Amino acid sequence: MKHSVRSDVPLLDPRDLDFLLYEWLDVESMCARERFADHSRTTFDAVLDLAADLAADRFVPHNKAADTTEPYRADTGEVVTVPEVAKALEALGGAGFLAGEFDAGLDGMQLPYVVSKAAHCWFQAANVSTSNYALLTVANAHLLQAYGTPKQVEQWVRPMLTGEFLGTMCLSEPEAGSSLADITTRAVSQDDGTYRVTGTKMWITGGDHEMSRNIVHLVLAKTPGAPPGVKGISLFLVPKYVLDEHGEPGDRNDVALVGLNHKMGNHGTTNALLAFGDGSHLPGGTAGAVGHLVGRENQGLAQMFHMMNEARIGVGLAATALGYTGYLQSVDYARTRVQGRPLGAASGAQVPIIRHPDVRRMLLAQKSYVEGALALGLYCAKLVDDVATAGEPEERDRARLLLELLTPIAKSWPAQWAVEANSLAIQVHGGYGYARDHNVEQLYRDNRLNSIHEGTHAIHGLDLLGRKVRMADGAALRLLLDVMEDTASRAAAGPGALPGWAEALRRAAQRITTTTARLWGPGRPEVALANATAYLEAVGHCVLAWIWLEQALTAAGGEGDFYEGKRVAARYFFAYELPRTGAQFDLLDSLDRTTLDLSETWF
Amino acid sequence: MKHSVRSDVPLLDPRDLDFLLYEWLDVESMCARERFADHSRTTFDAVLDLAADLAADRFVPHNKAADTTEPYRADTGEVVTVPEVAKALEALGGAGFLAGEFDAGLDGMQLPYVVSKAAHCWFQAANVSTSNYALLTVANAHLLQAYGTPKQVEQWVRPMLTGEFLGTMCLSEPEAGSSLADITTRAVSQDDGTYRVTGTKMWITGGDHEMSRNIVHLVLAKTPGAPPGVKGISLFLVPKYVLDEHGEPGDRNDVALVGLNHKMGNHGTTNALLAFGDGSHLPGGTAGAVGHLVGRENQGLAQMFHMMNEARIGVGLAATALGYTGYLQSVDYARTRVQGRPLGAASGAQVPIIRHPDVRRMLLAQKSYVEGALALGLYCAKLVDDVATAGEPEERDRARLLLELLTPIAKSWPAQWAVEANSLAIQVHGGYGYARDHNVEQLYRDNRLNSIHEGTHAIHGLDLLGRKVRMADGAALRLLLDVMEDTASRAAAGPGALPGWAEALRRAAQRITTTTARLWGPGRPEVALANATAYLEAVGHCVLAWIWLEQALTAAGGEGDFYEGKRVAARYFFAYELPRTGAQFDLLDSLDRTTLDLSETWF
Repeated sequence: MKHSVRSDVPLLDPRDLDFLLYEWLDVESMCARERFADHSRTTFDAVLDLAADLAADRFVPHNKAADTTEPYRADTGEVVTVPEVAKALEALGGAGFLAGEFDAGLDGMQLPYVVSKAAHCWFQAANVSTSNYALLTVANAHLLQAYGTPKQVEQWVRPMLTGEFLGTMCLSEPEAGSSLADITTRAVSQDDGTYRVTGTKMWITGGDHEMSRNIVHLVLAKTPGAPPGVKGISLFLVPKYVLDEHGEPGDRNDVALVGLNHKMGNHGTTNALLAFGDGSHLPGGTAGAVGHLVGRENQGLAQMFHMMNEARIGVGLAATALGYTGYLQSVDYARTRVQGRPLGAASGAQVPIIRHPDVRRMLLAQKSYVEGALALGLYCAKLVDDVATAGEPEERDRARLLLELLTPIAKSWPAQWAVEANSLAIQVHGGYGYARDHNVEQLYRDNRLNSIHEGTHAIHGLDLLGRKVRMADGAALRLLLDVMEDTASRAAAGPGALPGWAEALRRAAQRITTTTARLWGPGRPEVALANATAYLEAVGHCVLAWIWLEQALTAAGGEGDFYEGKRVAARYFFAYELPRTGAQFDLLDSLDRTTLDLSETWF
Repeated sequence: MKHSVRSDVPLLDPRDLDFLLYEWLDVESMCARERFADHSRTTFDAVLDLAADLAADRFVPHNKAADTTEPYRADTGEVVTVPEVAKALEALGGAGFLAGEFDAGLDGMQLPYVVSKAAHCWFQAANVSTSNYALLTVANAHLLQAYGTPKQVEQWVRPMLTGEFLGTMCLSEPEAGSSLADITTRAVSQDDGTYRVTGTKMWITGGDHEMSRNIVHLVLAKTPGAPPGVKGISLFLVPKYVLDEHGEPGDRNDVALVGLNHKMGNHGTTNALLAFGDGSHLPGGTAGAVGHLVGRENQGLAQMFHMMNEARIGVGLAATALGYTGYLQSVDYARTRVQGRPLGAASGAQVPIIRHPDVRRMLLAQKSYVEGALALGLYCAKLVDDVATAGEPEERDRARLLLELLTPIAKSWPAQWAVEANSLAIQVHGGYGYARDHNVEQLYRDNRLNSIHEGTHAIHGLDLLGRKVRMADGAALRLLLDVMEDTASRAAAGPGALPGWAEALRRAAQRITTTTARLWGPGRPEVALANATAYLEAVGHCVLAWIWLEQALTAAGGEGDFYEGKRVAARYFFAYELPRTGAQFDLLDSLDRTTLDLSETWF
């Protein structure tokens, strides 16, 4: 595979993508599935190459400009963004990337999801702010395709897949962020079958701008008389412009921009407070935002979660991509920055800092985090494919279970460790890393969002320990442990360091088993869940150790720098990272009550 | 002690300062020393109260403004800063805080160093950017007082202690950051006893501005024929304005601002690239920056390190103060932000998020980091006092040894963990924490600098393991272990959880002993130092465990929320934090060669 990467800023390593997609995940074999019959490694490579080129040409050049010149609201009330953002999205839509995994009937490329997501990683690494618009639009389109009517798909999905319309998700409200049960946005059905939506939505990424002919908001709201809590949430499609009789954007809907949020990073992505139905506009002469029910009433949260799982993998990959480019940039810097001498050499020429052991440690740590996270993210993306297109029903069920279990980790682990990678990238750059002339400080700021949105870090801990490991009577966790044991047993017979790592992974798996059983012993859910975050982080590191053993196995026998790099990163992970989990499992096993047995007045 | 804190933004906990200064460190007893004979707890309290008031009145209000409106260079070439910075510094100087620990003969308050530093923590918590100017000026004045001539002290130190002149440290150059041996700035002696200095200095905090009548640069440079490397470095005082015959700032010296650096945080502090002797100005009609030798030739680095140790404690306290205010702000937020319900309650009113165990974990973690770091920083500041004023020579020597050993930890531990505290403060705030409407994202950005300047994180690892634990034939480390054992033995006889924590601390101390011995076994300095950072972090956590045991001992028997808070933070530290060191010591004991046995081409 020949890749042309024209950007001066290294974004991802195409050799690593080849390794993961073809040598490890054997994505090529998916072409045997009917849905992908028209594809081949050649078409996959062409897509990935095109993504790399587009990222370099259209996304990299304005990454700093969009950071420096934040979107603002002009006197006219319109949101002004640097013009390159719209142009990049137009190019993305024009090249078909918004429709990558969608049906040919929707003019999609009908790519495997895993290939499509790998392609998007290029855009995320190049400019996460601009790519956010694309990813939300794609996720939005997926949801409508799954639950919308054929007419809704035609009217809304089709223009989203070209980028003419862009999409948002409207979940949070000022008083209901993590607690969706408490949303107060209301939707009242009208005689014509539409609804009128009233309420305020917060943190809406891409919530307002002038970069598309329409904005398709997917809004969680409650209908009068709906059941309390999450069971009474419905999902509505609320466009910025109501469609006219020709299906074209017509009257301005009653959706008003209240204000833009100004964030530490992700400056290029508008983030809005939106008022629905405050009477700012009067579509059809009446106040209230015109909305269309998606699916059935009171099914909104379940439907949204369909989208959320994929969105969470997308967030994990965004974090990963930011970490990845920071890693590559710090490798470049470490190779060229000359400073200091080897131990014991008081004189003589200074050496590139990549010779210093601690710089190497910081590079290895980054490598192990970002290459590990990318592998995990692509593995999960392939599970999305398997759920939809694997040959046997059992295989699909198996993929679904594993995907459910891994999703909180695929989101939260990169969100935590790719930020750490970006911090190390700053550290490798020294004072330059803290300066805005270099790129790494922006990556760090941009990336810090990822453990907050799409479910905070803590929520993924509760999801994993409170729900996922217990679902289907523990079948998902047993499946993961089986998969890990399968890897370990293959590695145990392998050359070099593999057997030792296999043994370490088995011990880690054993700890997951015993700790999970202990936590879910009789009558202590409160204690079990009190340290759900420690559980998430410990299991996350074990999963990444498994991912690294998989990569090391795949690399076994491979010669040359690339494979040596995989082996040394695996060595790093087993020596420096996996052992961190011991203290976490010990804490969990102790059923520690520190956070429970305290009074709030002690702070 | 009655403290009035008028700021809406909580900065530090005055009750905690009382606890640390009076209940733990018994600072009041220092008044028995001749130097502090005019002082009492009353004067100390007055100083601390005044600092809290000044911080609230003069430092807090422009913290965000100085972040938003960065210093810039006007068309006239002058640096423009928001005017409140100069006013705050003027107030600081006027109130005597720049002269806090200085001699009465210099119109100083002759305070114990520890009290003076505690007072400065208020300014650092309120506005670290503005306080940077003050701290550098004080450190500069200390150095001149130690090594300058009486005339230099009179001419330069006196106006710095009022804030009329401000000071800088000029060490780094574009090609010589961490590697000071490689500086190329030259100083050539003149017939009149002055020198002319030529060279470029980088990352100069407070390097140029219009906020003082003069700027006093302390510049490292080499004289012709000086020995190579660090042994040929001399120290020069190079003012922005040469003094005229009346001792007043006169001709502009040949020091030119090349450019301002734009950083991720610390926006309010100018950071400059300066050209010395490039002919931009011609003092006395000739190019070359007029400099005055400080101390003797070739002693520059040793002299600078005199200043660096205190500067490093100052950086540690700056990091701590940023962490501390972030902690208090997130406690306030967690008490008032209502979101979600207790485990198992599907309905009913939502509760403040401080009820959720994971939020409490994040608050406890912050509390343990910032209160622990503050305790360590003040302990080290008191050691500075003891070195200078303890009654017996043995006590002074002991303090000097312990201070030397603890300095790399007092700098690097807060720089690492107070950033983590700020990250947790963001996380407690959720989406709001990532938004610039709240303060915590700025703290996180401001704080990230602290593991880079005044010696990077890695350099402190090398300093600790490569130098400090071996100095005086290991006497410093033995002393630390003795001090830890003394604490453990007192705690072993204490009530409640103290004996268990004492045992844990003893095990930690044992690991320090065995691991240090193993690393410095015969013939493996390369291996020993390869993981110096892991050593720094592991020993740092052990030292903080000791600090927490000291605090818990001091709190033993105390009743009420404050003392309960100390106990639960100690409990948190021993349950969640100290166990992290196990994996680090294991790694060190394994003499791991991962970072040594690799080729740079594998990245």
